[in-house]
Amino acid sequence: MLLTKSCMERLRRGWKELMPILAAHHLHHYRCHHCCVGKSRRLVFSQVFQPMNFEEGRVPGQESKSGELTCKSQRLMLQAGLIHPGSPGCFSYMPYTVRAIDKLIRVIDKEMAAIGGQKLNMPSLSAAELWRKSERWGLMGSELFRLTDRHSKEYCLGPTHEETVTDLIASQGSLSYKQLPLLLYQITRKFRDEPKPRFGLLRSREFYMKDMYTFDASEEAAHLTYDLVCDAYSRLFHSLGLPFVKVQADTGNIGGEKSHEFQVPASIGEDRLLVCSSCTFSTNVEALSAVQKECPECRNALIETKGIEIGHTFYLGTKYSSVFKALFLNDQNKLVIAEMGCYGLGVTRILAAAIEVLSTEDSIRWPTIIAPFQACLIPPKKGSKEESAAALMENLYDDLDSLPHMKGETILDDRTHLTIGKRVKDADKLGYPYVIIAGKKALEDPSFFEVRCQNTAEVVFLTREGVIDLLRNVQTV
Amino acid sequence: MLLTKSCMERLRRGWKELMPILAAHHLHHYRCHHCCVGKSRRLVFSQVFQPMNFEEGRVPGQESKSGELTCKSQRLMLQAGLIHPGSPGCFSYMPYTVRAIDKLIRVIDKEMAAIGGQKLNMPSLSAAELWRKSERWGLMGSELFRLTDRHSKEYCLGPTHEETVTDLIASQGSLSYKQLPLLLYQITRKFRDEPKPRFGLLRSREFYMKDMYTFDASEEAAHLTYDLVCDAYSRLFHSLGLPFVKVQADTGNIGGEKSHEFQVPASIGEDRLLVCSSCTFSTNVEALSAVQKECPECRNALIETKGIEIGHTFYLGTKYSSVFKALFLNDQNKLVIAEMGCYGLGVTRILAAAIEVLSTEDSIRWPTIIAPFQACLIPPKKGSKEESAAALMENLYDDLDSLPHMKGETILDDRTHLTIGKRVKDADKLGYPYVIIAGKKALEDPSFFEVRCQNTAEVVFLTREGVIDLLRNVQTV
Repeated sequence: MLLTKSCMERLRRGWKELMPILAAHHLHHYRCHHCCVGKSRRLVFSQVFQPMNFEEGRVPGQESKSGELTCKSQRLMLQAGLIHPGSPGCFSYMPYTVRAIDKLIRVIDKEMAAIGGQKLNMPSLSAAELWRKSERWGLMGSELFRLTDRHSKEYCLGPTHEETVTDLIASQGSLSYKQLPLLLYQITRKFRDEPKPRFGLLRSREFYMKDMYTFDASEEAAHLTYDLVCDAYSRLFHSLGLPFVKVQADTGNIGGEKSHEFQVPASIGEDRLLVCSSCTFSTNVEALSAVQKECPECRNALIETKGIEIGHTFYLGTKYSSVFKALFLNDQNKLVIAEMGCYGLGVTRILAAAIEVLSTEDSIRWPTIIAPFQACLIPPKKGSKEESAAALMENLYDDLDSLPHMKGETILDDRTHLTIGKRVKDADKLGYPYVIIAGKKALEDPSFFEVRCQNTAEVVFLTREGVIDLLRNVQTV
Repeated sequence: MLLTKSCMERLRRGWKELMPILAAHHLHHYRCHHCCVGKSRRLVFSQVFQPMNFEEGRVPGQESKSGELTCKSQRLMLQAGLIHPGSPGCFSYMPYTVRAIDKLIRVIDKEMAAIGGQKLNMPSLSAAELWRKSERWGLMGSELFRLTDRHSKEYCLGPTHEETVTDLIASQGSLSYKQLPLLLYQITRKFRDEPKPRFGLLRSREFYMKDMYTFDASEEAAHLTYDLVCDAYSRLFHSLGLPFVKVQADTGNIGGEKSHEFQVPASIGEDRLLVCSSCTFSTNVEALSAVQKECPECRNALIETKGIEIGHTFYLGTKYSSVFKALFLNDQNKLVIAEMGCYGLGVTRILAAAIEVLSTEDSIRWPTIIAPFQACLIPPKKGSKEESAAALMENLYDDLDSLPHMKGETILDDRTHLTIGKRVKDADKLGYPYVIIAGKKALEDPSFFEVRCQNTAEVVFLTREGVIDLLRNVQTV
């Protein structure tokens, strides 16, 4: 029990009697008892809860469990212990995955802050009355997870939050045009009762989604805001090094007047896309009323491909704002119905899609900026001729960890009972952007380390200073 | 649509035909269209979605809605627009609150990393079969939110995850003692169907909880791990400047052999505590089998007080691990049942408890390290004699924002149609740790700014350099 001076002063107002007693309760055990004693304070691989099943080539305990469709990212993530399957379409994200998701969220936050996005967080429990008002309680059918509370009040678990956010804005009374455009977003867990959950994190029933909702006082302004967000999405995917195409899309049950999808071309993609062979026209076939073979804009041939949808934007107009009465005072001091847009990003899906298209058949590759760790250091095998280079590796670890942007980004594969080769193979499969090895050349003077740049498939030999210089320029988040 | 070189190479393998076409789709709109044009890139208060209702002294649209009990933190958070009520016990967290929660999570992550904690993320949907196995499906009664999916499979929304995590560990086959202690935690949204949600974020139905689960191969080691986590919790509350007392607690429906609660003394606390007037003994009355007036350890008088529970730890023994068969190979290569502990922290509750005990009757006070913004700059009123000092304020903003740890921590109250006094009052109520004002002395040579240190109630006049030096030493996360 601890009381700082200013807290004590505060408490003293109401707790005169108790204070001398509380003050006598000293906090006694501040030291770590057994975790830090005798163990390195460096992050070491042997202590990470990330049980891999690369050798066996099997997906732990799951391949026979269901007839679920599988794909490369799912297989690789299961083998590497990045995800652990629970109920169908529900996964536990293991420590490496949580690190990657946290980074992806920070990248998204940065892009959203750059366009004036403001982050909030709305409840998962969404009252049926809100959804009845928008008529989606009926429309959404069995995709909504529904439940009742102890008072028999009906709820759904929000797969998306147009109703909640529009009701929130409406409840504020009349906001001023001066605050516009208002770009509100959240990055939270979402729920959808998929008929056939499949492909791991690509189509699951629980997932993380970034959903943004924008409000404007005129159609014209709303279209500008729409483009603003779409451009931020493009920049985001670019910063992740993800190939993508922005296509015209169907508005589905969200509704509205205009919609685009951001699609990652992939053979396992569930969307069929038509991309013009000449101009920038591209569309989801769902958005077409009839079969089309030539581009409506330039008459050249359309080529069909498949894509994984990682983002979806909608210009909603007043579909929700008119129902919930979300109003703004415009610059003529007149109340107008807000013009809205909504913009989804599948956060966990982006992660899986990136692994799907960037990885090789048996090795994970991450977008560098969101890789769980930037570098893995592999010291020599115990008892080998190079063993004396182990200390160099530890020094290098400390050097890298002292670069501010690399703090916590390095992991030491301390399984020195294994050969370097075996550990390099594991590191390759886990996809650290930089794998740094203390081999024979580490004993030369000066020492050289082997550096494998996994995302460019380059191998270079660098001195300690060279490694530090290389990693000094890595972008982290 | 953008393709980096290495991505193109990867895609080329399977997408030869599509590539030239995709490559022709250039990303065109990179500039912001209307958000950044003509607007300051500084963070300004007028653009923040944080509608306050301080003047009216009313809680927006809620006071009559239900007979809910209220308290200071709830009232202040509603007035400041920090939370917005949805269904009973469900709140939207507005931008300031999200910032504070994100910071609190980072503080927790740091403390957990320091003791070797590893962060994962388990699903909210928890299959009934898991809960039947531990017999809690029946025991938890109507506190569990229950639902069925489209295939009539039963689930609950996890209020806690002993079943899920123990099943996860059991599924890994036999892990080695070398990995122990294993400290796994998550910080996720939890659900509890409270009979009477009340006191805002102190007792809600949706909330953020940090839950940690530890695994050891012997009772002795498990007790050390238990103390290790408890000490980390003490350090955490200390770093937040929260007065607290660690008391013996009832094990409730979680079960186990030993339990402690971390309680913040507060008149609205729902727990009754007995604290010894002489030694460190303290207990929740729930943990006592009979009424006790004197300390069982030193025979001195026990004093009763009330507390808000912000943390709860349990030594579980093998209660769950024996049911789910979570086994470890010990150092004699013998399979043993894991000894477990579990440790909860109410993340959103800590935030509300801090506001409850640190705030004055009408002004919010935050633990400095998790305040949404560290500093609010108040430039002179438009048209006032001091107006020319506005530029000094903008320069000061830029100076502060260029300190690495202060990046994004300053907000400029650009509502210059309002008097300084009015804005200082608002800033006081929102509880920025530092409120910096350009008043008359800003026109002197050298300029002096009025700095109000809200958490110590000090007012000082400092030059530009003085302000920078003061904030250079602020701890941020």
